[in-house]
Amino acid sequence: MSNSEILRKHTSERMSRIVIHQGTVYLCGQVGSDFTSDIQQQTQETLAKIDSLLEEAGTSKERILSATVYVKDMADFMEMNGIWDAWVPAGFAPARACVQAEMARPEILVEITIIATI
Amino acid sequence: MSNSEILRKHTSERMSRIVIHQGTVYLCGQVGSDFTSDIQQQTQETLAKIDSLLEEAGTSKERILSATVYVKDMADFMEMNGIWDAWVPAGFAPARACVQAEMARPEILVEITIIATI
Amino acid sequence: MSNSEILRKHTSERMSRIVIHQGTVYLCGQVGSDFTSDIQQQTQETLAKIDSLLEEAGTSKERILSATVYVKDMADFMEMNGIWDAWVPAGFAPARACVQAEMARPEILVEITIIATI
Repeated sequence: MSNSEILRKHTSERMSRIVIHQGTVYLCGQVGSDFTSDIQQQTQETLAKIDSLLEEAGTSKERILSATVYVKDMADFMEMNGIWDAWVPAGFAPARACVQAEMARPEILVEITIIATI
Repeated sequence: MSNSEILRKHTSERMSRIVIHQGTVYLCGQVGSDFTSDIQQQTQETLAKIDSLLEEAGTSKERILSATVYVKDMADFMEMNGIWDAWVPAGFAPARACVQAEMARPEILVEITIIATI
Repeated sequence: MSNSEILRKHTSERMSRIVIHQGTVYLCGQVGSDFTSDIQQQTQETLAKIDSLLEEAGTSKERILSATVYVKDMADFMEMNGIWDAWVPAGFAPARACVQAEMARPEILVEITIIATI
């Protein structure tokens, strides 16, 4: 098992957006693009980035194992969930946890981390 | 490795309570049942739910790899740990992290996510 | 796949510092040693502990898959990142998420959890 291959994509000095090892895919925490937008748009942008990274990793949202959702304000929980629920393919929902936390910038309203499989 | 089987149980439009892939088991964030109860009872209820889900996944608390514990108020840390420590089988403690966070409802005092193996 | 071996090291009644299963390594949440020190020193101490535990697990920081960084105060984000970025080997950065959270003691400024592979 030692020295099995690790594939990294979009690797900066700080993090890789995608890390793949033995078929398990780890994405770095994803956030929206336009931080002036509301929770619904930031959630949609976050999920679009996840779609794109999963495609690049050779997989898709049907194959997410686990997700951790951080929301800046639990008052946004229902609106975030509305976008999330519509995005999750019926019958393919991952394990999920959602807690409240401040992210790297105060304008970020939601951040999602993903573990998936190829 | 592609298209290896993913087994999901208790799947709603939002999340699955159990996701199993290649022998690794991901549980969604578990919370207590009675949100009027104190940290000790909520911790006990949370751990009882974890026991039940692990059994349904074909495993047990002896085979937990990693746990993340979110507590609403770090003032409850010692009391949560008292229940946790009594629940963990001697010699089988998982890797664990514990941080403070607000959960989906203000009455929720503790939430625990689990990665285990069959 | 059932009953595959789980190797635990530094196991207390509460947690194991290292859990290894099928080549995947889970470390418990790591924090600094001297909680009177500033974010830079606490980050360095935390990363030194991670180095040490990874070595004990038979691996190294070149083989980290995913990291979750909790900082007590996002005002420390840039200083934490300065230490982190210098520590990460060029080309080997893991997937990472960083959120703000209080840890077990108010003096703890940073805590990091790691998933790696042998």
